Amino acid sequence: MKIELERVLPMDIERRSFEIITQELGERRLEQENELVIKRVIHTTADFDYADSLHFSADAVKRGLEALKAGACIVTDTQMAKAGINKTMLSRLGGEVFCFMSDEDVAQRAKQNGTTRAVASMEKAAQLGRPLIFAIGNAPTALVRLYELIQENRVDPRLVIGVPVGFVNVVESKELFVHSEIPHIIARGRKGGSNVAAAICNALLYQLVNRD
Amino acid sequence: MKIELERVLPMDIERRSFEIITQELGERRLEQENELVIKRVIHTTADFDYADSLHFSADAVKRGLEALKAGACIVTDTQMAKAGINKTMLSRLGGEVFCFMSDEDVAQRAKQNGTTRAVASMEKAAQLGRPLIFAIGNAPTALVRLYELIQENRVDPRLVIGVPVGFVNVVESKELFVHSEIPHIIARGRKGGSNVAAAICNALLYQLVNRD
Repeated sequence: MKIELERVLPMDIERRSFEIITQELGERRLEQENELVIKRVIHTTADFDYADSLHFSADAVKRGLEALKAGACIVTDTQMAKAGINKTMLSRLGGEVFCFMSDEDVAQRAKQNGTTRAVASMEKAAQLGRPLIFAIGNAPTALVRLYELIQENRVDPRLVIGVPVGFVNVVESKELFVHSEIPHIIARGRKGGSNVAAAICNALLYQLVNRD
Repeated sequence: MKIELERVLPMDIERRSFEIITQELGERRLEQENELVIKRVIHTTADFDYADSLHFSADAVKRGLEALKAGACIVTDTQMAKAGINKTMLSRLGGEVFCFMSDEDVAQRAKQNGTTRAVASMEKAAQLGRPLIFAIGNAPTALVRLYELIQENRVDPRLVIGVPVGFVNVVESKELFVHSEIPHIIARGRKGGSNVAAAICNALLYQLVNRD
């Protein structure tokens, strides 16, 4: 069997991908402020459902960009999301990525409290005392605990990227934010993931830092 | 607004998720050998499309399990997939994960040859001289180059997990394997990703190593 490959230079693959995405979105109107985020998530997942499921609070992208420009750090709930975020770009703006999931003190606290490491890692993040963006791609328990910590005035994120994936309490954990005043970008429904969390962070970073 | 969360103990969330997946698959029959892989990919993505799109060559899972038991190493094309693979379990079997994408010699070779780092990293992997499983979750160029290297008898993988995601040459790169004799697990179509690559590796590992 003969497979025909499209001739595209490596440097042009991403540009060509975005052209295809734009073309297939057709008549569909995206909010201009959110367009680059939505398209990058579709680029990362090849899943056009995100054109409908991504929910942005007012000025969410603007707030995220301002926070990053001011050197905000990003807290994630997985090493995968941390691996996927462009840390070189983030560091040029003065920020860094934290994931506390593998920390010994987090494991101990989770065990003591009969909760998840994701919950314990949010509690640790709340003590950072730095401007923060949370990018939660896996654990609904992390997102729920983060919501509680915000309600208790123990942390005040500049933006919450809430895109856990799954079947148990995932939809509900995300709806908490959709119906709140907390600045957020949420993938409603069951879908999401560490890859989506990283893609949204990178979509913000690429608007601020030259990639070359 | 009141959001009702389901009361599930942290340790039971995954079990409950798999119950829901099984329930929603309904009458749908999965090949018993492939069932745990398919369900774990759905668990990772909340996307039931994978029940249809995952393509297994004959005895693919059996070959993967045998290779891992014999200490095979896993080569990935992203740091994200590497981050997502359970390296503790893999090491108990004698294997390790390699991702050469950030290596200086790979960047140089790609530049010299006007190709992608993904291509150069496959060429580096072919020189490892160890039993290998490839888990490609991002770059179709990596998958195409891997196919060529196999045709040229320069590498002989025990299993190729081919699940790149995207819009340019992604479908075609995967069809190369579907229509070949190479042992493979392929996500046909545009969808896939580093998370899917890691999930398939872990679905194999979890059949061999106790998670507690």
